[in-house]
This record gives sequence, structure tokens and C-alpha cells, in this order.
Amino acid sequence: MSTGDKQVDIVRRRWMAASAAGAAAGLSGWSPSSLAQAQPGAKPMPAVASFKDADAMIVHSANGIETRRDAFGSSGITDVERLFLRNNLGAPNAAIVENPDAWKIEIDGVTSPASLTVGDLKRMGLDTVAMVLQCSGNGRGFFEHKASGSQWKVGAAGNVLWSGVPVRDVVAALGGVRQGMRYMTSTGGETLPPGVDAARIIVERSVPWTAMEEAILAWELNGAPLPLAHGGPLRVIIPGYYGVNNVKYVKRLAFTVDETQANIQKSGYRVRDIGKKGDPTQPSMWEMNLKSFVTSPSADGQKLRAGLLQVQGVAFSGGSPVRGVEVSVDGGKTWQTARFVGPHMGRHAWRQFVAQVNLPPGKYMITSRAIAADGSTQPEQRVENERGYAHNGWRDHALTVTVA
Amino acid sequence: MSTGDKQVDIVRRRWMAASAAGAAAGLSGWSPSSLAQAQPGAKPMPAVASFKDADAMIVHSANGIETRRDAFGSSGITDVERLFLRNNLGAPNAAIVENPDAWKIEIDGVTSPASLTVGDLKRMGLDTVAMVLQCSGNGRGFFEHKASGSQWKVGAAGNVLWSGVPVRDVVAALGGVRQGMRYMTSTGGETLPPGVDAARIIVERSVPWTAMEEAILAWELNGAPLPLAHGGPLRVIIPGYYGVNNVKYVKRLAFTVDETQANIQKSGYRVRDIGKKGDPTQPSMWEMNLKSFVTSPSADGQKLRAGLLQVQGVAFSGGSPVRGVEVSVDGGKTWQTARFVGPHMGRHAWRQFVAQVNLPPGKYMITSRAIAADGSTQPEQRVENERGYAHNGWRDHALTVTVA
Repeated sequence: MSTGDKQVDIVRRRWMAASAAGAAAGLSGWSPSSLAQAQPGAKPMPAVASFKDADAMIVHSANGIETRRDAFGSSGITDVERLFLRNNLGAPNAAIVENPDAWKIEIDGVTSPASLTVGDLKRMGLDTVAMVLQCSGNGRGFFEHKASGSQWKVGAAGNVLWSGVPVRDVVAALGGVRQGMRYMTSTGGETLPPGVDAARIIVERSVPWTAMEEAILAWELNGAPLPLAHGGPLRVIIPGYYGVNNVKYVKRLAFTVDETQANIQKSGYRVRDIGKKGDPTQPSMWEMNLKSFVTSPSADGQKLRAGLLQVQGVAFSGGSPVRGVEVSVDGGKTWQTARFVGPHMGRHAWRQFVAQVNLPPGKYMITSRAIAADGSTQPEQRVENERGYAHNGWRDHALTVTVA
Repeated sequence: MSTGDKQVDIVRRRWMAASAAGAAAGLSGWSPSSLAQAQPGAKPMPAVASFKDADAMIVHSANGIETRRDAFGSSGITDVERLFLRNNLGAPNAAIVENPDAWKIEIDGVTSPASLTVGDLKRMGLDTVAMVLQCSGNGRGFFEHKASGSQWKVGAAGNVLWSGVPVRDVVAALGGVRQGMRYMTSTGGETLPPGVDAARIIVERSVPWTAMEEAILAWELNGAPLPLAHGGPLRVIIPGYYGVNNVKYVKRLAFTVDETQANIQKSGYRVRDIGKKGDPTQPSMWEMNLKSFVTSPSADGQKLRAGLLQVQGVAFSGGSPVRGVEVSVDGGKTWQTARFVGPHMGRHAWRQFVAQVNLPPGKYMITSRAIAADGSTQPEQRVENERGYAHNGWRDHALTVTVA
């Protein structure tokens, strides 16, 4: 983390402690020592996420909550009570989800810019998409250079259903995108702390404007109104893109010539060598790479009974879609083809897979690798980078279990 | 309701009041008068369903809770907090879901009958299916002869994901179904009240044995362990069949020569003319018929603003799969083709549909009708029958709204 990032982080934390959400969550008294006294090793669930199933989650911080590897289930869809949570700033006041249809968004960079309410959007079109939501730093906990940020293992990802209006329907109703625009830039509605340059902390992200073809402005998650914690009343959903691009409480969607100058875009979420600072010449965390991981067995060192076993997991990609998955029980020496289970919910959803194995007593290193339609294969090794982004190496994701 | 049925109902209610579940739910003090004092028109959520979203539900009784028509959303999957609930007997003690893998089921009518735990089943195979769960009496509230039972309108139905082991995998591991068996008979694990002939009240259902091809023994619902209210630790899931056949807390699955002699099979859930008693010669509530209904707009008498409107709903069938849906805003005089929205989750799931209409001020009667792959069409009228089963007539499901 750069010195600048650190300062912002300190400001942010102070702000959170003073904000309503922070106070409600008891964050003002939240320090490592008080936690240790309360419950060794476990942090309290923040108020904004009080509806989460605590037994299924790992709380890294008030803004970073991970799904336990043994809590993904086999249904293909991640229950919202078990979906990871990552916020770059504290959530706005909960009052904004009391009358969600009244939330306003500015649409700009189109022929006829407009201010629309969610109520207006609901009359303009409808689509539903099953999509993997994954934090850029998912897998950061496997890096060895202590990359700063939440030490996610596999659980900063989930597959969920979003409903809303296609961005292309809104754009069409407003006369189309203006000539020369190259980016779609979304601005979050978080309340910014006073006395800080907005560009340093505002959640504003730009993606190539063509992403609008599949993007939706969503007000619903898994069949229920989008909760505040996950960006309600309105969130921009960009299928195939890392979580940070799916801006919450979206208050402005603009087609722009340039990327936003906000730090979260300019220097944040950039892939660079270890020790380097972030800058706009480096790749931005946009499309997700090809990835899979085993969810059952679910823990290193697990002890299992000999015999038949259903090795399960999930596979997904933001680019060329997943065509197949292979499973290994010997640390990658040999592989067997896994079978997909359950409905295929579209190319942006993850596929649930299972491989039946028959294990005599012994020690096994169990892992999976995904194969994409274009023939590319999930790599063995992670790509080292400063912030521990985009980890899809199958070796670090392996589990070693004992069968007796 | 026959006199026999009524007696059983009285016994059942007394038993529920005395049982742990009943006491925990405060059912012993639950009478129309006390309810009226507490909250006019609203009944309390029973303890077993305390996790339900009260704002999304209509509580008919402690064993009958309906999803509000405006609470289905557009995501295709019904959130478990919004899924209807119907129990024929009170749920067993909640202790049975504390260690779900220990639950035992007897498998009989196979070459090698066996007693298996859920832990054993989890090692034997895996499948996930998206399936409409619908009460036989869904739509009963539209009948005019006051059919006995919960007065469901549209909300005793939901589309959810079930994970478990395919019954055919279990059967194959036990040497196959014995010669001459014609039914698959499932027995529920409810605790029966003392002093009553078990056959009168036990939840035991038989379906044609070929239904085993798609059936699963499920321990997971929408990505989380199956809750007690919905049949956890283990429920038999028979895709395409009405809810009652999907026996909860299943403790025995047997292939049998004859249908069970339990009342719930012999005389209950039989379609017969008004005034007739149930008997085994009448059709049993097995495969669901072709059905659709509008979910948005969502109320009779709703007032809407003139202009564009997205008419939404769901369509499903237990037989020939849904091929298309048509929407009418003039009470069936003219129809327009609706569009499917979101992922297609398989033939047993429902399809979310939407039709964009542009309505000038006036009064509209909005409804939908589904068309199946075999060319059959959802009928206009209900089929009158004593218990108000299987209502799929599109006229009763229509909503009259005012646009200004």
C-alpha cells in the first residue's frame, strides 16, 4: 500500500467510526484488543451485514466478509446470506432503501442526458442475469509477500442473480451514446467524508464503453430487493468484470472520453510488480480470468473416510466461457474429467462441477483446473503482483486431506 | 371436508397445540379472537418459519403461509425467505437439523434394502435441479364454492434449487428396484400424535415408480442446508409433481406394488366433483398442469401511471414444457407474445416472462396464458372440484388495474 493509500485508509477508517453505520456496528470501539477479549479470532458482523449467516462467513473487517469454503453448497447459486461483502467506503444511510423507487441516477454522455428514478427505470426494460461477483483480491491470502488488503482465500466470490434494466435500453431511450465516448463511468452514492479531496476516495470506475451491451442497472438480487449492503437501491452490474466495477448506490452513469481521475481507477486496482506503485499505464482490474476451485472437501488437513467421495467445486470465467473442468487428487500429476451439475445459467454464471473418486487410505492433494472454450487452461501458478490481484493458479487453491 | 377429515383435523390441531413446535410458536393461545386483538387481519408467523420475510408473506395458518403476489421478483428463483410453506403435520423437533448427516432413511423394495444416513448419501452421488414447488391447492381462493383448506391465490408456488443424490444412484448401488414394483412410496418423519391410527394422519405418498428417474433425495435448498420448515435434513424431490408428493423429513423410500393405504393418498389429494368424497379411483395430485400468472402488476385495483409498463410473470408445467407465453391487457380479447427473461434453468423450473405494453389511461384486465411444447394451451376456466385443486384457468388469475 502506498503512503497515499495509507493516509486515505486512515481517513476512511476515522470516518467510518464516526458515521452512523459505523456507530451502529459498534465500530468506534472496534480494535484488535477489544476483539480478542470478546471472542478470540472472530470479528463481529457489521450492522449493515447483520442478515448474513455468521456461521458461513469469515469477517476480515467491517468492509470485508468472506464466504467459508465449506459454505458454498452445491446449488449453483450463492445464498445472499452467504455472499461475500466488500465495500470500499461505508454504506450510505439505510434510509435510501426504504423507498427504493425514489433513488435517482443521472445518465450522461448520451444524446439526451436525463435524471431518472428507479421507478422510471422499472418501466423501461427488464433483464435478469446470473453472474459471478468476485473481488479483485480473491485469493490474496495465498500470496507470500503479504499483499495489503483483506486476506481472502476462495470466498470473495459468489454466483447470484441480478434483475434490472439493460443499460442499452436506457441508452436507446435517451438517443444513444454520444460520438467519441470510450468509457462507461459509474459513480457510487457513498457519503464522502468532509475535508478530503473527493477524487482520492470516491468510488468511481470506468470500463470500456462496449461493456454496456451486457450491463444492467439492477434493483434486485436473488429474487428480493437489492439490500443496502450489496448496493441497493441500484447497482451497475457488468457481467464478467471484477466486483469493483459493479458500482453500488450508483448515482451517475456516464459515457466518457477518458477514464475517471479517481484514485480507485488511476492508481487503485492496477496490476503491477511487487514494490511498484499503481499508475494508469498498468492493466486495470476489468475482465475476470479463468478460474476454478474445489469447495468439497473444504479444508486443508481434513480427515475423510476411505471410499467413494464426490469432489465438488465451481468454475467460471469473465472471458472465453468454461468448457470443462478437470480434478486431480495427486497434486496435478494426473487429472480426471469432472461432470457439470445443475442448470447452466449462462456464460457469466459459474458451473458447479463434481468428480466421483474412490480413495483408499492415504494423503491426497485435491485441486481442479478449468478449461475455456478457446482452449486456454487455468494456470498452475499465480502471477506475482503488488496487491495480490486476480489469483487463479490451481496449485495454491489445492487442499491436502488425509483419508483413513 | 369430509367428517373423517374434520376429525383428523381436530386431533391434529390439538396435537400441534401440545407439541413442542406448537408451544414454541405460541399456537396454544392462537385463536381468531386473540389474533384479532393482536393485529387485525394478520396472523403471527409460526416459529418454524421465523426466518421468512414477514412483509413478503400472507399467513393463512401455522401450516399455511403464502408468498404475496408482489413479492416474487424477477430473478427466476424464489428466495427461501419468500417461499410459501405448507405442512400437513407440524414439523419434528428442530434437533434433527442440528446434525443433518446423521439422519437415517430406509430404502426398501430394492434388491438389497438398506438403512443409510445423509452422510452416506452425500458420498453416493450428486445432482442439482431447479424446480417449481407448488401446493395442490394453489389458486383455491379463486373457487366460489368455499373449498376447504388454505385460500391460496397465486403464492403457494415458488421456483427453487434443490441439491442431493439422485434416487437412481441410490437404487443402482442397492442392486436395482425389485421386480413388479409399480410405485415409489415416501414416508415423512413427523412425530405422530399418540392414540390415533397412523394411517389416518401419516404423511406417506406414492407416485408412479418411473418418477424415480428424475427424483432426488435433497439436503440443500438454494445453496444452504435444507431448513426444518422445508423438510430438512432430507426431503424427496420429485420434479414436476405437486408439493405433497415431495415428502419432508423423509425416513423411508420404498418401491411398492401398491399405493400406500394412508388417508393422504387414499382419499386425500384426489380430484372429484363438488360434494363428493375422496376415493382411490379418482385422479391423484401427481404431475402439475400447465400454468402461468402475472406477478407485476400484482394487485386487483392497482392504480398505474400511463405509458410504458413491463408486464411480468412466471410460467411452468409438470408435463410438456412451456414453449411460450402470451399476455393480454383486455381480458383475453387480444394477446401479445411475451419474452422470456433470465437463464433457462431446465424444464422443471419456471420461466420468468415479460411483455412491454404502452397503456393510455383506462381500465385494463391483465392476464397471461402459457403454451406448451406439445401445443396445448393454458385454459381460460378452472375445472370445478371439491377441494379446489390444480387451478390453472387464466381468467381467475387476471388482475384489473386502472391506468391514469
